[in-house]
Amino acid sequence: MLEKIYHLGYAVEDIEAAARFYEEHFGVRVGEPEEIEEQGIVATMFEVGESMIELVQPTRPDSPVGKFLEKRGEGFHHVAFQVDDLEAALKGLKENGVELIDEKPRVGAGGARMAFLHPKGAHGVLTELVELPDKDQG
Amino acid sequence: MLEKIYHLGYAVEDIEAAARFYEEHFGVRVGEPEEIEEQGIVATMFEVGESMIELVQPTRPDSPVGKFLEKRGEGFHHVAFQVDDLEAALKGLKENGVELIDEKPRVGAGGARMAFLHPKGAHGVLTELVELPDKDQG
Repeated sequence: MLEKIYHLGYAVEDIEAAARFYEEHFGVRVGEPEEIEEQGIVATMFEVGESMIELVQPTRPDSPVGKFLEKRGEGFHHVAFQVDDLEAALKGLKENGVELIDEKPRVGAGGARMAFLHPKGAHGVLTELVELPDKDQG
Repeated sequence: MLEKIYHLGYAVEDIEAAARFYEEHFGVRVGEPEEIEEQGIVATMFEVGESMIELVQPTRPDSPVGKFLEKRGEGFHHVAFQVDDLEAALKGLKENGVELIDEKPRVGAGGARMAFLHPKGAHGVLTELVELPDKDQG
Protein backbone atom coordinates (compact mmCIF):
# COMPACT_ATOMS: atom_id res chain seq x y z
CA MET A 1 0.00 0.00 0.00
CA LEU A 2 2.86 2.40 0.79
CA GLU A 3 4.77 2.65 -2.50
CA LYS A 4 7.50 5.04 -1.44
CA ILE A 5 8.31 8.09 0.65
CA TYR A 6 7.00 10.82 -1.64
CA HIS A 7 8.41 13.68 0.39
CA LEU A 8 9.46 14.89 3.81
CA GLY A 9 8.24 18.35 4.78
CA TYR A 10 10.65 20.51 6.78
CA ALA A 11 9.35 23.69 8.46
CA VAL A 12 11.90 26.50 8.13
CA GLU A 13 12.12 30.14 9.20
CA ASP A 14 13.90 31.30 6.04
CA ILE A 15 13.40 29.22 2.91
CA GLU A 16 16.24 30.93 1.02
CA ALA A 17 18.72 30.15 3.79
CA ALA A 18 17.52 26.55 4.07
CA ALA A 19 17.71 26.06 0.28
CA ARG A 20 21.25 27.50 0.28
CA PHE A 21 22.22 25.14 3.13
CA TYR A 22 21.23 22.06 1.14
CA GLU A 23 22.63 23.38 -2.15
CA GLU A 24 25.99 24.40 -0.72
CA HIS A 25 26.62 21.47 1.56
CA PHE A 26 24.83 18.58 -0.17
CA GLY A 27 25.03 19.56 -3.82
CA VAL A 28 21.28 19.33 -4.43
CA ARG A 29 19.30 21.56 -6.81
CA VAL A 30 16.42 23.32 -5.10
CA GLY A 31 13.50 24.57 -7.22
CA GLU A 32 12.06 28.09 -7.19
CA PRO A 33 9.92 28.77 -4.10
CA GLU A 34 6.18 28.98 -4.79
CA GLU A 35 3.61 30.67 -2.62
CA ILE A 36 0.49 28.68 -1.72
CA GLU A 37 -1.64 31.46 -0.30
CA GLU A 38 -4.49 29.24 0.91
CA GLN A 39 -2.09 27.37 3.22
CA GLY A 40 -0.13 30.48 4.23
CA ILE A 41 3.18 29.04 3.03
CA VAL A 42 6.00 29.36 0.55
CA ALA A 43 7.39 25.96 -0.47
CA THR A 44 10.11 24.45 -2.61
CA MET A 45 11.51 20.97 -3.19
CA PHE A 46 14.66 19.05 -3.94
CA GLU A 47 15.14 15.42 -4.93
CA VAL A 48 16.88 12.73 -2.87
CA GLY A 49 16.70 9.37 -4.66
CA GLU A 50 13.07 8.52 -5.42
CA SER A 51 11.87 11.00 -2.76
CA MET A 52 11.82 14.76 -2.27
CA ILE A 53 12.48 17.12 0.60
CA GLU A 54 9.96 19.97 0.77
CA LEU A 55 11.09 23.14 2.51
CA VAL A 56 8.13 25.09 3.88
CA GLN A 57 8.20 28.63 5.26
CA PRO A 58 5.04 30.20 6.66
CA THR A 59 3.86 33.52 5.21
CA ARG A 60 1.64 34.26 8.24
CA PRO A 61 2.21 33.37 11.90
CA ASP A 62 -1.38 32.07 12.25
CA SER A 63 -1.04 29.49 9.45
CA PRO A 64 -0.62 25.85 10.57
CA VAL A 65 3.11 25.89 9.73
CA GLY A 66 3.47 29.31 11.41
CA LYS A 67 1.97 27.93 14.61
CA PHE A 68 4.15 24.81 14.36
CA LEU A 69 7.30 26.96 14.09
CA GLU A 70 6.29 29.09 17.05
CA LYS A 71 5.65 26.03 19.19
CA ARG A 72 8.41 23.63 18.11
CA GLY A 73 10.92 25.63 16.09
CA GLU A 74 12.45 24.60 12.80
CA GLY A 75 12.52 20.92 11.89
CA PHE A 76 10.67 17.95 10.48
CA HIS A 77 6.99 18.76 9.89
CA HIS A 78 5.42 15.83 8.00
CA VAL A 79 6.05 12.76 5.86
CA ALA A 80 4.10 11.97 2.69
CA PHE A 81 3.80 8.39 1.45
CA GLN A 82 2.76 7.67 -2.10
CA VAL A 83 -0.15 5.23 -2.35
CA ASP A 84 -1.80 3.63 -5.35
CA ASP A 85 -5.43 4.21 -4.39
CA LEU A 86 -6.03 7.02 -1.91
CA GLU A 87 -9.82 6.58 -1.64
CA ALA A 88 -9.41 2.91 -0.77
CA ALA A 89 -6.62 3.70 1.71
CA LEU A 90 -8.73 6.33 3.51
CA LYS A 91 -11.75 4.04 3.57
CA GLY A 92 -9.69 1.24 5.14
CA LEU A 93 -8.09 3.54 7.71
CA LYS A 94 -11.45 5.02 8.69
CA GLU A 95 -13.02 1.57 9.09
CA ASN A 96 -10.08 0.60 11.29
CA GLY A 97 -10.69 3.64 13.51
CA VAL A 98 -7.50 5.51 12.55
CA GLU A 99 -7.94 9.23 13.20
CA LEU A 100 -7.89 11.26 9.97
CA ILE A 101 -7.61 14.99 9.33
CA ASP A 102 -9.01 14.56 5.81
CA GLU A 103 -11.63 11.85 5.34
CA LYS A 104 -11.83 12.69 1.62
CA PRO A 105 -8.92 13.40 -0.72
CA ARG A 106 -7.99 17.03 -1.35
CA VAL A 107 -6.28 18.17 -4.54
CA GLY A 108 -2.77 19.48 -3.89
CA ALA A 109 0.10 20.79 -6.01
CA GLY A 110 0.36 19.38 -9.54
CA GLY A 111 -3.09 17.76 -9.36
CA ALA A 112 -1.99 15.13 -6.84
CA ARG A 113 -4.73 13.90 -4.52
CA MET A 114 -3.69 13.97 -0.89
CA ALA A 115 -5.00 13.55 2.65
CA PHE A 116 -3.54 13.84 6.13
CA LEU A 117 -3.81 11.39 9.00
CA HIS A 118 -3.94 12.93 12.45
CA PRO A 119 -0.53 12.74 14.16
CA LYS A 120 -2.21 11.64 17.42
CA GLY A 121 -3.41 8.49 15.68
CA ALA A 122 -0.06 7.83 14.00
CA HIS A 123 2.36 7.76 16.94
CA GLY A 124 3.06 11.50 16.74
CA VAL A 125 4.03 11.70 13.07
CA LEU A 126 1.96 14.00 10.85
CA THR A 127 1.47 11.61 7.92
CA GLU A 128 0.19 12.51 4.46
CA LEU A 129 -0.90 10.04 1.80
CA VAL A 130 -0.52 11.10 -1.85
CA GLU A 131 -1.89 9.59 -5.04
CA LEU A 132 -0.31 10.95 -8.20
CA PRO A 133 -2.57 11.92 -11.11
CA ASP A 134 -0.59 9.85 -13.64
CA LYS A 135 -0.02 6.44 -12.10
CA ASP A 136 2.73 5.72 -14.61
CA GLN A 137 4.84 8.25 -12.72
CA GLY A 138 4.76 6.04 -9.60
CA MET B 1 26.10 13.28 -2.70
CA LEU B 2 22.74 12.30 -1.14
CA GLU B 3 21.87 9.01 -2.84
CA LYS B 4 18.57 8.30 -1.14
CA ILE B 5 16.66 8.50 2.12
CA TYR B 6 18.08 5.47 3.90
CA HIS B 7 15.65 5.59 6.79
CA LEU B 8 13.45 7.77 8.96
CA GLY B 9 13.72 7.19 12.69
CA TYR B 10 10.49 7.44 14.69
CA ALA B 11 10.66 7.61 18.50
CA VAL B 12 7.85 5.53 20.04
CA GLU B 13 6.69 4.67 23.55
CA ASP B 14 5.73 1.09 22.70
CA ILE B 15 7.49 -0.53 19.76
CA GLU B 16 5.07 -3.47 19.61
CA ALA B 17 2.06 -1.15 19.39
CA ALA B 18 3.75 1.03 16.74
CA ALA B 19 4.76 -2.04 14.70
CA ARG B 20 1.18 -3.35 14.90
CA PHE B 21 -0.14 0.05 13.77
CA TYR B 22 1.91 -0.03 10.57
CA GLU B 23 1.32 -3.73 9.94
CA GLU B 24 -2.45 -3.58 10.43
CA HIS B 25 -3.17 -0.32 8.68
CA PHE B 26 -0.48 -0.12 6.00
CA GLY B 27 0.23 -3.76 5.26
CA VAL B 28 3.97 -3.52 5.90
CA ARG B 29 6.12 -6.28 7.39
CA VAL B 30 8.02 -5.12 10.46
CA GLY B 31 11.16 -7.02 11.50
CA GLU B 32 11.89 -8.42 14.96
CA PRO B 33 12.87 -5.71 17.47
CA GLU B 34 16.57 -5.72 18.44
CA GLU B 35 18.05 -4.22 21.57
CA ILE B 36 21.05 -1.94 21.13
CA GLU B 37 22.15 -1.66 24.73
CA GLU B 38 24.85 0.94 24.15
CA GLN B 39 22.26 3.38 22.80
CA GLY B 40 19.59 2.42 25.32
CA ILE B 41 17.08 1.48 22.63
CA VAL B 42 15.10 -1.32 21.05
CA ALA B 43 14.68 -0.81 17.30
CA THR B 44 13.02 -2.41 14.32
CA MET B 45 12.48 -1.50 10.67
CA PHE B 46 10.07 -1.80 7.79
CA GLU B 47 10.56 -1.00 4.12
CA VAL B 48 8.82 1.74 2.15
CA GLY B 49 10.08 1.83 -1.44
CA GLU B 50 13.86 2.22 -1.42
CA SER B 51 13.78 3.55 2.17
CA MET B 52 13.02 2.19 5.62
CA ILE B 53 11.15 3.42 8.67
CA GLU B 54 12.97 2.65 11.91
CA LEU B 55 10.84 2.43 15.05
CA VAL B 56 12.88 3.21 18.15
CA GLN B 57 11.79 2.70 21.75
CA PRO B 58 14.07 3.73 24.61
CA THR B 59 15.01 1.10 27.20
CA ARG B 60 16.08 3.74 29.75
CA PRO B 61 14.64 7.23 30.36
CA ASP B 62 18.14 8.78 30.43
CA SER B 63 19.10 7.54 26.92
CA PRO B 64 19.02 10.16 24.14
CA VAL B 65 15.75 8.76 22.74
CA GLY B 66 14.32 8.51 26.27
CA LYS B 67 15.04 12.20 26.85
CA PHE B 68 13.62 13.06 23.43
CA LEU B 69 10.35 11.26 24.25
CA GLU B 70 10.06 12.97 27.61
CA LYS B 71 10.58 16.39 26.05
CA ARG B 72 8.72 16.12 22.74
CA GLY B 73 6.60 12.97 22.88
CA GLU B 74 6.31 10.36 20.19
CA GLY B 75 7.17 11.32 16.64
CA PHE B 76 9.84 11.85 14.02
CA HIS B 77 13.32 11.59 15.55
CA HIS B 78 15.86 11.65 12.69
CA VAL B 79 16.44 11.17 8.97
CA ALA B 80 19.34 9.16 7.53
CA PHE B 81 20.62 9.85 4.02
CA GLN B 82 22.77 7.31 2.22
CA VAL B 83 26.00 8.78 0.87
CA ASP B 84 28.69 7.26 -1.28
CA ASP B 85 31.73 8.46 0.67
CA LEU B 86 31.08 9.36 4.29
CA GLU B 87 34.65 10.47 5.13
CA ALA B 88 34.66 12.90 2.21
CA ALA B 89 31.17 14.16 3.11
CA LEU B 90 32.16 14.84 6.75
CA LYS B 91 35.40 16.53 5.69
CA GLY B 92 33.51 18.85 3.33
CA LEU B 93 30.84 19.67 5.91
CA LYS B 94 33.44 20.40 8.57
CA GLU B 95 35.41 22.67 6.23
CA ASN B 96 32.18 24.52 5.46
CA GLY B 97 31.57 25.07 9.17
CA VAL B 98 28.54 22.79 9.47
CA GLU B 99 28.09 21.65 13.08
CA LEU B 100 28.62 17.89 13.46
CA ILE B 101 27.89 15.52 16.33
CA ASP B 102 30.31 12.94 14.89
CA GLU B 103 33.38 14.28 13.11
CA LYS B 104 34.51 10.74 12.35
CA PRO B 105 32.33 7.86 11.14
CA ARG B 106 31.01 5.41 13.74
CA VAL B 107 30.12 1.83 12.89
CA GLY B 108 26.41 1.14 13.27
CA ALA B 109 24.06 -1.79 12.68
CA GLY B 110 25.11 -4.23 9.93
CA GLY B 111 28.57 -2.70 9.61
CA ALA B 112 27.29 0.53 8.06
CA ARG B 113 29.41 3.60 8.77
CA MET B 114 27.35 6.51 10.05
CA ALA B 115 27.65 9.98 11.54
CA PHE B 116 25.19 12.58 12.81
CA LEU B 117 25.05 16.27 11.97
CA HIS B 118 23.90 18.54 14.77
CA PRO B 119 20.23 19.50 14.34
CA LYS B 120 21.05 23.13 15.23
CA GLY B 121 23.25 23.33 12.15
CA ALA B 122 20.70 21.62 9.90
CA HIS B 123 17.57 23.75 10.37
CA GLY B 124 16.33 21.68 13.29
CA VAL B 125 16.44 18.24 11.65
CA LEU B 126 18.62 15.59 13.31
CA THR B 127 20.36 14.30 10.19
CA GLU B 128 22.42 11.11 9.87
CA LEU B 129 24.66 10.20 6.96
CA VAL B 130 25.16 6.48 6.24
CA GLU B 131 27.66 4.70 4.02
CA LEU B 132 26.86 1.04 3.40
CA PRO B 133 29.66 -1.53 3.68
CA ASP B 134 28.87 -3.09 0.30
CA LYS B 135 28.47 -0.23 -2.14
CA ASP B 136 26.73 -2.54 -4.61
CA GLN B 137 23.76 -2.51 -2.23
CA GLY B 138 23.19 1.21 -2.82
